[in-house]
Amino acid sequence: MKNQLMNMLEMRKNEMIQIRRYLHENPELSFKEEKTAQYIIDFYKGKDVDIQTNVGNGLGIIVTIEGGKPGKTIGLRADFDALPILEETEVPFRSKNEGVMHACGHDGHTAYLLVLADCLIQLKSSLPGTIKIIHQHAEEVPPGGAKSIVESGVLDDLDAVFGTHLFPSHPAGEVGYRSGYSMAGRTYFKLGIKGVGGHGSSPHLANDAIVAGSHFVTAVQTVISRRLNPFDMGVVTIGSFDGKGSFNVIKDRIEIEGDVRYMTEETQQLINKEIHRIVKGIETEFDVQCELLYMPDYPALYNDPKMTEFVKNSLQNMNDPDIKQVLEFPMFSGSEDFSYYAEKTPGCFFYIGCKPKGVEKVYFNHHPKFDIDEDALLIAAKSVAQVVCSFYELD
Amino acid sequence: MKNQLMNMLEMRKNEMIQIRRYLHENPELSFKEEKTAQYIIDFYKGKDVDIQTNVGNGLGIIVTIEGGKPGKTIGLRADFDALPILEETEVPFRSKNEGVMHACGHDGHTAYLLVLADCLIQLKSSLPGTIKIIHQHAEEVPPGGAKSIVESGVLDDLDAVFGTHLFPSHPAGEVGYRSGYSMAGRTYFKLGIKGVGGHGSSPHLANDAIVAGSHFVTAVQTVISRRLNPFDMGVVTIGSFDGKGSFNVIKDRIEIEGDVRYMTEETQQLINKEIHRIVKGIETEFDVQCELLYMPDYPALYNDPKMTEFVKNSLQNMNDPDIKQVLEFPMFSGSEDFSYYAEKTPGCFFYIGCKPKGVEKVYFNHHPKFDIDEDALLIAAKSVAQVVCSFYELD
Amino acid sequence: MKNQLMNMLEMRKNEMIQIRRYLHENPELSFKEEKTAQYIIDFYKGKDVDIQTNVGNGLGIIVTIEGGKPGKTIGLRADFDALPILEETEVPFRSKNEGVMHACGHDGHTAYLLVLADCLIQLKSSLPGTIKIIHQHAEEVPPGGAKSIVESGVLDDLDAVFGTHLFPSHPAGEVGYRSGYSMAGRTYFKLGIKGVGGHGSSPHLANDAIVAGSHFVTAVQTVISRRLNPFDMGVVTIGSFDGKGSFNVIKDRIEIEGDVRYMTEETQQLINKEIHRIVKGIETEFDVQCELLYMPDYPALYNDPKMTEFVKNSLQNMNDPDIKQVLEFPMFSGSEDFSYYAEKTPGCFFYIGCKPKGVEKVYFNHHPKFDIDEDALLIAAKSVAQVVCSFYELD
Amino acid sequence: MKNQLMNMLEMRKNEMIQIRRYLHENPELSFKEEKTAQYIIDFYKGKDVDIQTNVGNGLGIIVTIEGGKPGKTIGLRADFDALPILEETEVPFRSKNEGVMHACGHDGHTAYLLVLADCLIQLKSSLPGTIKIIHQHAEEVPPGGAKSIVESGVLDDLDAVFGTHLFPSHPAGEVGYRSGYSMAGRTYFKLGIKGVGGHGSSPHLANDAIVAGSHFVTAVQTVISRRLNPFDMGVVTIGSFDGKGSFNVIKDRIEIEGDVRYMTEETQQLINKEIHRIVKGIETEFDVQCELLYMPDYPALYNDPKMTEFVKNSLQNMNDPDIKQVLEFPMFSGSEDFSYYAEKTPGCFFYIGCKPKGVEKVYFNHHPKFDIDEDALLIAAKSVAQVVCSFYELD
Repeated sequence: MKNQLMNMLEMRKNEMIQIRRYLHENPELSFKEEKTAQYIIDFYKGKDVDIQTNVGNGLGIIVTIEGGKPGKTIGLRADFDALPILEETEVPFRSKNEGVMHACGHDGHTAYLLVLADCLIQLKSSLPGTIKIIHQHAEEVPPGGAKSIVESGVLDDLDAVFGTHLFPSHPAGEVGYRSGYSMAGRTYFKLGIKGVGGHGSSPHLANDAIVAGSHFVTAVQTVISRRLNPFDMGVVTIGSFDGKGSFNVIKDRIEIEGDVRYMTEETQQLINKEIHRIVKGIETEFDVQCELLYMPDYPALYNDPKMTEFVKNSLQNMNDPDIKQVLEFPMFSGSEDFSYYAEKTPGCFFYIGCKPKGVEKVYFNHHPKFDIDEDALLIAAKSVAQVVCSFYELD
Repeated sequence: MKNQLMNMLEMRKNEMIQIRRYLHENPELSFKEEKTAQYIIDFYKGKDVDIQTNVGNGLGIIVTIEGGKPGKTIGLRADFDALPILEETEVPFRSKNEGVMHACGHDGHTAYLLVLADCLIQLKSSLPGTIKIIHQHAEEVPPGGAKSIVESGVLDDLDAVFGTHLFPSHPAGEVGYRSGYSMAGRTYFKLGIKGVGGHGSSPHLANDAIVAGSHFVTAVQTVISRRLNPFDMGVVTIGSFDGKGSFNVIKDRIEIEGDVRYMTEETQQLINKEIHRIVKGIETEFDVQCELLYMPDYPALYNDPKMTEFVKNSLQNMNDPDIKQVLEFPMFSGSEDFSYYAEKTPGCFFYIGCKPKGVEKVYFNHHPKFDIDEDALLIAAKSVAQVVCSFYELD
Repeated sequence: MKNQLMNMLEMRKNEMIQIRRYLHENPELSFKEEKTAQYIIDFYKGKDVDIQTNVGNGLGIIVTIEGGKPGKTIGLRADFDALPILEETEVPFRSKNEGVMHACGHDGHTAYLLVLADCLIQLKSSLPGTIKIIHQHAEEVPPGGAKSIVESGVLDDLDAVFGTHLFPSHPAGEVGYRSGYSMAGRTYFKLGIKGVGGHGSSPHLANDAIVAGSHFVTAVQTVISRRLNPFDMGVVTIGSFDGKGSFNVIKDRIEIEGDVRYMTEETQQLINKEIHRIVKGIETEFDVQCELLYMPDYPALYNDPKMTEFVKNSLQNMNDPDIKQVLEFPMFSGSEDFSYYAEKTPGCFFYIGCKPKGVEKVYFNHHPKFDIDEDALLIAAKSVAQVVCSFYELD
Repeated sequence: MKNQLMNMLEMRKNEMIQIRRYLHENPELSFKEEKTAQYIIDFYKGKDVDIQTNVGNGLGIIVTIEGGKPGKTIGLRADFDALPILEETEVPFRSKNEGVMHACGHDGHTAYLLVLADCLIQLKSSLPGTIKIIHQHAEEVPPGGAKSIVESGVLDDLDAVFGTHLFPSHPAGEVGYRSGYSMAGRTYFKLGIKGVGGHGSSPHLANDAIVAGSHFVTAVQTVISRRLNPFDMGVVTIGSFDGKGSFNVIKDRIEIEGDVRYMTEETQQLINKEIHRIVKGIETEFDVQCELLYMPDYPALYNDPKMTEFVKNSLQNMNDPDIKQVLEFPMFSGSEDFSYYAEKTPGCFFYIGCKPKGVEKVYFNHHPKFDIDEDALLIAAKSVAQVVCSFYELD
């Protein structure tokens, strides 16, 4: 069955690319991926599978492929939401939804997994077990989709779970793995700072929330520079400073949103405590009222060491000329709500190189010029297919 | 004619209030006051006057009331734009246009002047001269409407120009004047700071524009605290810090808008130079690209001393029980593009108290809870009527 | 007597200069002016006057010149302390006491007054009253010498009090006066910030007081830039940031000293409250302990309007070719503990121009390159002599 | 010989403590350790060894113990300088040299090595090789003493080099090792910021260097928080902010000293570039002149893996009840100029636990309350003796 599967995938390489381009052109924000979800549902229409829609806290879709023989159950996951970024690439299929962009490769994840799923459906009579395709909504925005899908119970019967991510750090053909803690845990926070509005010419009758917010931004840098053990990993990013107003009106309220990363719970707690303290200090210092919503969300991603060893060996023994190198990747500061699946079920999340050919300066995920080498789609599909086949010991 | 005019105004007090409430409920932003302008045009429909519309760089309206006898020409000006403020009052006629509010009293300015104009039209056969009613758009946002109206030439024949502003610092019944430099000059600036976008977890691969912007905000405070002669007046307000984005995407670009005030050209130049230098320093310090648009706009308002003396004497001799006190006001840090009219034609811009009755804490102009005592509308109308009658020496 | 006095002063011009140079070469810090006080005491040795030493909280000296006839009592004051500044002038008599400098002209004040006192002693039989020469210690450092001298009671019998200050804003020959509030009130504050010391390489085990202190300095700028009415005068200067330590040891404690100026008690209270609040905020924000010593000291200087009018008229009618102009000076942001004498006794403190000849860029008081035109010494002596003679109506 | 040596050391435990206390009571700053050096020289007086004094760029002392038989040459190093810290311990032998303190354990290093050296001298006829005792001056202050001692050539014949450091992170009885890169590289920098002095009340006539310096301190935090890869180790500490002055004089110049740490040359270069850029930005932003002296000094410490394995095995096989545990230590952010010896000769620098007994909160090296368990001195002596004996294969 394996050879057959691989051949089918190779023949449908172009289809993967077309799907990816369609999705790229029609990106939708997290929790609002209605057309995307419908596109996926339509894809499976008429196919012999069970489809659950609206799974979890959004538009999650679980496609269950029941094999011809009894056996273990595997989950394969791809996410399908996009980002609020104004695309700056020159590709002909650039986003038609201005200000929204597939800048993290989820279009590619979904594209390869749809085609792979379809191939598996066609071959399912030979499949000694069940495969659950997890089309996940809302990976980019906390609380994310994964946690709620896990909590819904639809994946309770999984024996293993796998997922991949496109990374342009390596060229297509290189596949990366890492055992144990591999991607950072994350906290989302939102800080509202309320002063007193007033006319721009009379600062003494108002209380300027922008000034207080700017002092918060400069002070919060010290959490990383002075509070963290220099050997520990930690990040505090202020991704949003919403203080838009009229130039001559003193802002009475601003809203700051931030992103915190760490590789240990100890660091999580340290940064948590320090940010709360700085906020309290700013409140007194500038006589403003602060509301802080502080939500540790995605935990650090833990790849099960045995599963990772299994994936590594499976890929290294693949003998496919497209898979040129299987190598250990470093820890990443990025976060992934795949960690929720991996908390419950032993699993492995691995990386697919997709650096565009002939490009000198690579734009990474979340950059307005992020792009991929579309050859990576077939490589992703074949890698996951290989892992599935190895898992069921199919030749 | 004067008694007749005053009686007509008193009888139409309620109409002024109704017009003001209608305008309050339907505020429009500067340069976008289409319905407001149409409302004004409709008001004059069928009346025996000349109306010019779309005057200047926007929706300015000049209504010319030709008197029955030849004589001097007076301009009377009221502005009609609103502010991008989310109204927080509890009045029954609160803004229906969410996020836009008449928080500076321009609804009241327009209301009293419409009724006054109509009365003057009815009495125009007795009028020994010409009155030009200036319904001005866009006072709040530079470059403002006044400059372009002046430049259009339609006011070239004015012999005097008058205007008023509602101020809740004093109760209705108190009218304020000030001779010479009375309101601050103003500069508008816009600073774009461009870094490099990226994923929130990888600050070293991006260049955080929000951090650079926050350092600009803290550094620019020193222009007032350290560079300005402590005996001089100067203000630098950052009214807008537009850094809204996704919490986990490092912002590649933010936009800051600011408002500068001063009472002398020397101070204007000092602050101008210092802000330019700080911007250049920030550019190097944070390796960002800055674009600074720096536009000194409304000059300081200069009330002609003779005209002011005339207005003061006229009002003090008015013998109207509603006008309880005529008093000198201090200099204001606020700016007014009435200064453009007063640069060209000797004029006087004076102040109408409008502090709501029974209120302990007053909310000033531009505050989301700004409100007025509607009795002030009739007082404004009668005060301006008195000045007009005195000017033409009408009893 | 007046002509005689003026002639004596002119003949002793060179002596004034020599005394000033000697004092300049031997400056002493406030409250430690032992040699200077001894020099003054020695000057009066053998002269027919009463000398009181160690007056007040330091080395104050009161010399009482009893006139030959009964009459009113005048106080004439000069201060004699120097500053902790490393002199950077090239004068041959530059400070021999490294790091200490007469950078505020007190050497000149003392020099002219010693010679003037000696002349008055010689002429005292013709004097219809009593003159108290007040050689005051410690003007530069709060609590200053004046307050304690006033409180000692030795000046309880004064009918008028006069003093002068050398200012290089104007050339020698120009004398300045101002009626009413003329010089700013002042507050001294000292802020200790205590963190936790530690090794420079382990910030997470320490708590960096220098970082907390730097945030205080940047935040305190907002008191002037955002809290003060832009039409009011206020200054907050951090004159000392004592965080000297070893480059690789995290400072556990720093000490900041500051200087606050204002022209009204209302502003005093506003800044007082705001600095206290910022300190409290910093304490929380950086988890440090702050001790704030906040001491409003010298009140604003109030020149009695009648006395000032008298001084102005006296000087304008002087008919001395050396006194070229008597002009109104603006308010000064500097402070003077002469205000304590003027609080108790009607008085006038006036200004003596001393801009060095042929110099383009003037260095002001307290600058390491501060210098004076020594012609100003005689002008000061003659101006004060004139005021004394006018007061007693002596020709 | 080994048993004999160990017995001798145990009998002289008290002597080690007495020497350490004497040194503790008489600390001297780096490059000024004259009495300490003389004390060491005196200790060796009359003993049969060769002493070289004033080695390197200071008061370094090399004592050569020629063994009775030919063989390899070992270097044993202890440093003897103290720190500019005001001691806050309550020990009876606290520093008599106020403001100077042995807060890093160098007193203990020297004490144990003197006694060990003396024992080795007594046993030298049995020694199959040469031991060079390196009493090093100035470890705390760059450029340090080690580099110049190495460059002098006196250690060119070493075959191995060993040293230890007292660390209160572990109790006496625990000894730590680490192979490869173990302690951070370091850069010293000094930044002079020159503005314009002036009177505290007239900021507009001066240019405040303290404000510029404070903005530098807040901005430099971003080098670690925003420029560094969050997985890399880096520290920027401002250890000294010398802005002491008079409260009412605006400082014309301040001096900042800093300490930078890193584990790779790449990070060194990154921080180097960023600090230079921030300084340049501050220069423009505040119109000040900056002089930056930037001196990367001690490289990262590299313990030779074979030597470290040898030391670890030697200590683990020691069978001494005092040596309770030999364990791997983490990387340290501290720096050590022992790295210069280890660059030239394979060596190992290891750690001696010295946490005071019965103490809950430990004060680390460089803290004003730093203290040690003096039992650690004998443990240090025996550990190094063990390594020496193992090296020469002596029983």
